[in-house]
Amino acid sequence: MKYSIGVDMGGTNTDLGLVTENGNIVQRRNLPTNVYTQFEPYIKEMMKVVDEMLEAQRAIDGQAVHLEGIGVGAPNGNFYTGCVDNAPNLTMKGVLDFGKEIHKWKDVPVVLSNDANAAAYGEYVYGGARGMKHFIMFTLGTGVGSGIVIDGRLVHGSTGAAGELGHAILYQHGRKCTCGREGCLETYTSARGIVQTYCELKGCEVTPDITSKMIGELAHQGDPVALKTWATVGDQLGLAMANAVTFSAPEAIFLMGGPAQVGEPLLKPLREAFDKYLLNIFQGSCTIRMSELKANEVAILGAAALLKMK
Amino acid sequence: MKYSIGVDMGGTNTDLGLVTENGNIVQRRNLPTNVYTQFEPYIKEMMKVVDEMLEAQRAIDGQAVHLEGIGVGAPNGNFYTGCVDNAPNLTMKGVLDFGKEIHKWKDVPVVLSNDANAAAYGEYVYGGARGMKHFIMFTLGTGVGSGIVIDGRLVHGSTGAAGELGHAILYQHGRKCTCGREGCLETYTSARGIVQTYCELKGCEVTPDITSKMIGELAHQGDPVALKTWATVGDQLGLAMANAVTFSAPEAIFLMGGPAQVGEPLLKPLREAFDKYLLNIFQGSCTIRMSELKANEVAILGAAALLKMK
Repeated sequence: MKYSIGVDMGGTNTDLGLVTENGNIVQRRNLPTNVYTQFEPYIKEMMKVVDEMLEAQRAIDGQAVHLEGIGVGAPNGNFYTGCVDNAPNLTMKGVLDFGKEIHKWKDVPVVLSNDANAAAYGEYVYGGARGMKHFIMFTLGTGVGSGIVIDGRLVHGSTGAAGELGHAILYQHGRKCTCGREGCLETYTSARGIVQTYCELKGCEVTPDITSKMIGELAHQGDPVALKTWATVGDQLGLAMANAVTFSAPEAIFLMGGPAQVGEPLLKPLREAFDKYLLNIFQGSCTIRMSELKANEVAILGAAALLKMK
Repeated sequence: MKYSIGVDMGGTNTDLGLVTENGNIVQRRNLPTNVYTQFEPYIKEMMKVVDEMLEAQRAIDGQAVHLEGIGVGAPNGNFYTGCVDNAPNLTMKGVLDFGKEIHKWKDVPVVLSNDANAAAYGEYVYGGARGMKHFIMFTLGTGVGSGIVIDGRLVHGSTGAAGELGHAILYQHGRKCTCGREGCLETYTSARGIVQTYCELKGCEVTPDITSKMIGELAHQGDPVALKTWATVGDQLGLAMANAVTFSAPEAIFLMGGPAQVGEPLLKPLREAFDKYLLNIFQGSCTIRMSELKANEVAILGAAALLKMK
């Protein structure tokens, strides 16, 4: 049987999954990321975990297991170099060359990209974007990421870092962003941005108790400030999405990530804003859709999907 | 000898050029566009003009002339359908199927796209973008157009109408646009938008006497209001360009069109704004450059270049 490994490298934990040709995750493991300051022992441990999974699968299948490759989704992951480059939220510093390090242990293809690109490609190979040639994925979370597929190919651009729509400037002279600039989409539609909007509307201090999840629950209970918050976020995201359509005229824009799970309180104003801000020639050509992959599977499936790239 | 025909269809006139393999325009002709309300006689006349050019070239070369194809750049031109679709500024209404109509007269490849896409592809085949894989062209004129090349391919998107960055919304609730929405880049950085900014800064009425060309001349004479106008336009365009980089991480952004001819009064603030608004990870990876094609040749060369598409 043929399998691939999908690796979802986060700042705290690294999740691994053994994935079938059809996109079923048949085994999962994880290892801590933030206990490592050196890259070599991190990869050594990761390969040990991979071997455990392969060995266990051999026993389950009762036959030889063929590993097709290892796909990695990682913050600041660069597709062209196969490296993670000075990711600010990692305890391992410098340039992390996954291909080089993994090849000390295993002679299999290694493909790496940033997490949002991987999520987009996972949707393309295993999810709701199957058969589409042009679409964009927005991921809402701590930050706002995006992955762009044009003509069936993931857009990496000249540097390998294309698809950073979370850092398109929505409002000149807007909110301060962690990137050092002002007004990035991320400062409004990330989990933190949503909390800030809620607190601004409510007239309260931002505290760790206030989460986007809580604001979602409040909205479902009919809380007017929470509903107004999601309406504002929907309007901002709808504008950003309509602008993205002027670039690549996708047939769909997918949405995923924690804050997007709130559902209609966000989706209804989002769709209304998108229609309002969409250029007339694109009306009816592009729909907003939720990711069809499970929230706890998309990162691993996306990483594994990178191996399917032509 | 091998030649191609480049057709630049404008609302008033249609310019035709006979183009060599190397991108030299060896003959030019034109016919009026706005005297035609029917498509058939327009194409019939165009083919007559093409035959005249081919016949003349046969005499000049003293040998057979091989026509490789006809490339057309046209407002609202759709690459996938080969049609111009209800262009508001044309006297010929409805769907104009260039391929079908031309094939009644000539059995050669016909490729069509909108004028900004054609200009971008002309830069790629014959101009300053030769050898680049990722770049964006902004065309400033009556409107603001754009053409996007990713992985060496012109981006047409799912509808054929991708690359409309002139209608990305720069300022929510901004100036009224001819497209019916508000705040499009075009309302600030088109010739008309520039005149409006000048008049707002000057505190005068917009009149037909005030042109972007005149504002350019005033800037070169040191007029402070004119200089402030170009600084404002440069800032706005620099922001739009920095946002475009988050999408496709191009290695260059090209600029062309009448208002761009002003030179440093626009380019200096534009480059400063671009650096200021560019996300840190893209710093140094993308430069702003002027089109290297002659202003009076780019439309014909761009149209002819479409035939080189793979």
